[in-house]
Amino acid sequence: MDLGLLYSAGKDSSLAALALDPFYTVTLVTATFGITDDWEHARKAAETADFDFRTLDLDPAVAEAAVDRMIADGFPRNAIQQVHTHALERLAAGDFDAIGDGTRRDDRVPAVSRAQAQSLEDRHGIDYVAPLTGFGRGAIDRLVDARLVVESGPSEAITRADYEAELRALLAKREGRAAVEEVFPDHEQSYVTGFR
Amino acid sequence: MDLGLLYSAGKDSSLAALALDPFYTVTLVTATFGITDDWEHARKAAETADFDFRTLDLDPAVAEAAVDRMIADGFPRNAIQQVHTHALERLAAGDFDAIGDGTRRDDRVPAVSRAQAQSLEDRHGIDYVAPLTGFGRGAIDRLVDARLVVESGPSEAITRADYEAELRALLAKREGRAAVEEVFPDHEQSYVTGFR
Repeated sequence: MDLGLLYSAGKDSSLAALALDPFYTVTLVTATFGITDDWEHARKAAETADFDFRTLDLDPAVAEAAVDRMIADGFPRNAIQQVHTHALERLAAGDFDAIGDGTRRDDRVPAVSRAQAQSLEDRHGIDYVAPLTGFGRGAIDRLVDARLVVESGPSEAITRADYEAELRALLAKREGRAAVEEVFPDHEQSYVTGFR
Repeated sequence: MDLGLLYSAGKDSSLAALALDPFYTVTLVTATFGITDDWEHARKAAETADFDFRTLDLDPAVAEAAVDRMIADGFPRNAIQQVHTHALERLAAGDFDAIGDGTRRDDRVPAVSRAQAQSLEDRHGIDYVAPLTGFGRGAIDRLVDARLVVESGPSEAITRADYEAELRALLAKREGRAAVEEVFPDHEQSYVTGFR
C-alpha cells in the first residue's frame, strides 16, 4: 500500500515516517506554495534514509488568507491549522492509498479530529493515519534522540522545510521582519538532517 | 528501551506489537486473574514472532467487582474498562521503561484519555504509548490482512487469550451460561495465531 506522508523535515513528521515504514511504501511529501525553496531541506533529509520524495503544490490564495489570519490574530495557530487542512485535502485527492501526518498526542496545532479524519477518508476513499497520536511528549523526545539526527538553533539560522517557512517569508514581505517576530515569538527551530 | 505491551492475542494488540517493534525492545504481557489458562494462546502467538512474553497477575477482587458490574449493567463495557485500567496500573508499576496497549481511534472501550495517560506517566515515571490511536477502522483492517494470521469463529470455539475470557468464565460460574449470552451478545471472536 502506498502512503503519502506530509513531511516538513521536522522531528514529528520524520518520526512518523519511521513509524509507518514497516506497514506502507512511504513517500515523503512536502507541501509548498512556491514562495521559497525551503522544501529542498526535506528532499535532502528524505534522501538520507532512501525515502521516496515529492512536493505537493498548495494554492497561493490559501497562503495569502493564512497570512491575513495571522496578522488579525497576532499568533500563527489558526492560520497553520487552515493550511494543514488544505494540504491534507490536496494530498488525499492524489493517487495514494493512504495519507498521514506527524500530529501527536500533545499537539494543539495542527490537530485533526476524529470526525475530520473520517470525513477525509470517506470523501476521498483513502485511509488517514497519524501514527504519533498515541505518543506523549516524553516518549517522542526519547525516540527522537534514539533515531534522528537533529539540528537546532535560532530561526534565522535554521529553516523548517515546510509551509510554515513560506508563511513567515510571505508575512515578512507583506508586513516586514518585525511582524514575523511578533507573530512567531519562539526563536528556537529545529530540523532533521538524518535518520539512524 | 524496554516496553511492555498489554497483549490479548487479538488483532489490535498484535498489530500494536508490530508498530512498536522498530522503536522498542517489546515484551508481550498478558494479564490474568488466574481463573483460566487462556493466556497460553497469547504465549503461542508471541512465540511465532520471537517476541518475549510474560504474564501479569491481576487482583482477583477486581474480577469479582467487574462481574458484579457486568451483571448490574447488562453489558460488559464499563467492567472491561475497569479491568483494563487496573491492568495498565499494574504494568506501569513494573520494571519497563514504557508500556503500551492496542487502543485504537474508533474504540469505545477500552479508552485511555489524554489525562489518564499523563497521570500514568507522571505517577510511574514511564511512557505510555498507544500506537494504533492514530489509525481508523479501515486502515487497521487492511494492515491486519497484510500482516497477521487470524482465526475467527463463534465464541464457543475461539477464546481470546485475555482477561475478557476469564471474566466470561467467572460470569458463567456465578450466573450460568445464559448470563454470558446476555451480557456478551456478540458471538464472533477472533484471535491471532501468527505474524507475517
